[in-house]
Amino acid sequence: MSDFFAVVHRQRACRSFRPEPVDEQVLAAVLGAATMAPSAENRQPWTFVVVTDEDSRARIGDLTRRAWRGGARTFSESRLAPTLLAEVDHGAEGGISAAPVLIVVGGDTSLGHEGAMAASIFPAVQNLLLAATACGLGSALTTLTTAFAAELRDLVGLPEHVLPMAVVPLGWPTRSLGPPRRQPLEAKAHRESYGAPWIPRGSPA
Amino acid sequence: MSDFFAVVHRQRACRSFRPEPVDEQVLAAVLGAATMAPSAENRQPWTFVVVTDEDSRARIGDLTRRAWRGGARTFSESRLAPTLLAEVDHGAEGGISAAPVLIVVGGDTSLGHEGAMAASIFPAVQNLLLAATACGLGSALTTLTTAFAAELRDLVGLPEHVLPMAVVPLGWPTRSLGPPRRQPLEAKAHRESYGAPWIPRGSPA
Repeated sequence: MSDFFAVVHRQRACRSFRPEPVDEQVLAAVLGAATMAPSAENRQPWTFVVVTDEDSRARIGDLTRRAWRGGARTFSESRLAPTLLAEVDHGAEGGISAAPVLIVVGGDTSLGHEGAMAASIFPAVQNLLLAATACGLGSALTTLTTAFAAELRDLVGLPEHVLPMAVVPLGWPTRSLGPPRRQPLEAKAHRESYGAPWIPRGSPA
Repeated sequence: MSDFFAVVHRQRACRSFRPEPVDEQVLAAVLGAATMAPSAENRQPWTFVVVTDEDSRARIGDLTRRAWRGGARTFSESRLAPTLLAEVDHGAEGGISAAPVLIVVGGDTSLGHEGAMAASIFPAVQNLLLAATACGLGSALTTLTTAFAAELRDLVGLPEHVLPMAVVPLGWPTRSLGPPRRQPLEAKAHRESYGAPWIPRGSPA
């Protein structure tokens, strides 16, 4: 048993994985959690391709590296703190594709229209990440590789009507990660109207 | 303590709420969970406006009803099973806005670019829905009202750089909801390549 709020408060992107495989029953629990997410009209337009083949993972890793070096790194390097940049660098240069499992997440446009797709896919991805965390697995939400949508589609055989939307690595982390770094709620929540910070009433002053 | 997988497997859209207010400490836990989600570059572009004012909720309800009657219902009526259509009808015609709390979720374009916004906002929304479920609250992911983005923006004072992306009702449900109806994992997961169903190895035949 894993407390819901404890899982939520320790979920964090992992970009360094041990090579040991992930047990299929654990994977089934994680993927099963993803399929419980809400979606527009309950159409469940998600598709998960579970990639463990070493050659396929290496090819996905090549695409990721190309997307990173081909522009994403230049965009990010002035925006990220040095520690985070180093982590993302490590992930994009091979850390992500070294995970024993890569889940390529697709959105099926025969089940939901493209404009509303993200609202139906990313809740499922978040369930997947949280479930991985609950099981002690490392994971991360990455979209970088989808910059090469056609190549990624070819690699995992996605038909034209399924859009590649994310790649989620899963595996046992090389080290335990600290808690996620997030701004406090009062910086993000507003009372009745934007600009009036929401601080719970009845809180100690 | 609330088991993570039990929460995930009972989360379901609620569209009928009792009028009793939600305790602010419970709201703080639910909103706090939302802020723990991952986001591109960890920029945390989410904004939550917590609306409890009766007049504001009625106006949001009016917008929702207009969006529903103005085209969304016509689009959905041939696509939804009669039971689900009746539920959505009830929600759009006043069930959602009768919730004691409406969270208007915005995406801050000064923190993340618009194309990547959904991948950074809907994981936080999903955390919010799951946390509500963990606390026994009803909730739903709705985007219908964002069809009237300018009006919704005005109602809660969102500045130009914050995009309204969802409205999440929170409150105590009028009745207990059954488990969500979802297709089985093997209909959604593929092994190595699209088209080969992923069924966990070592499962009982």
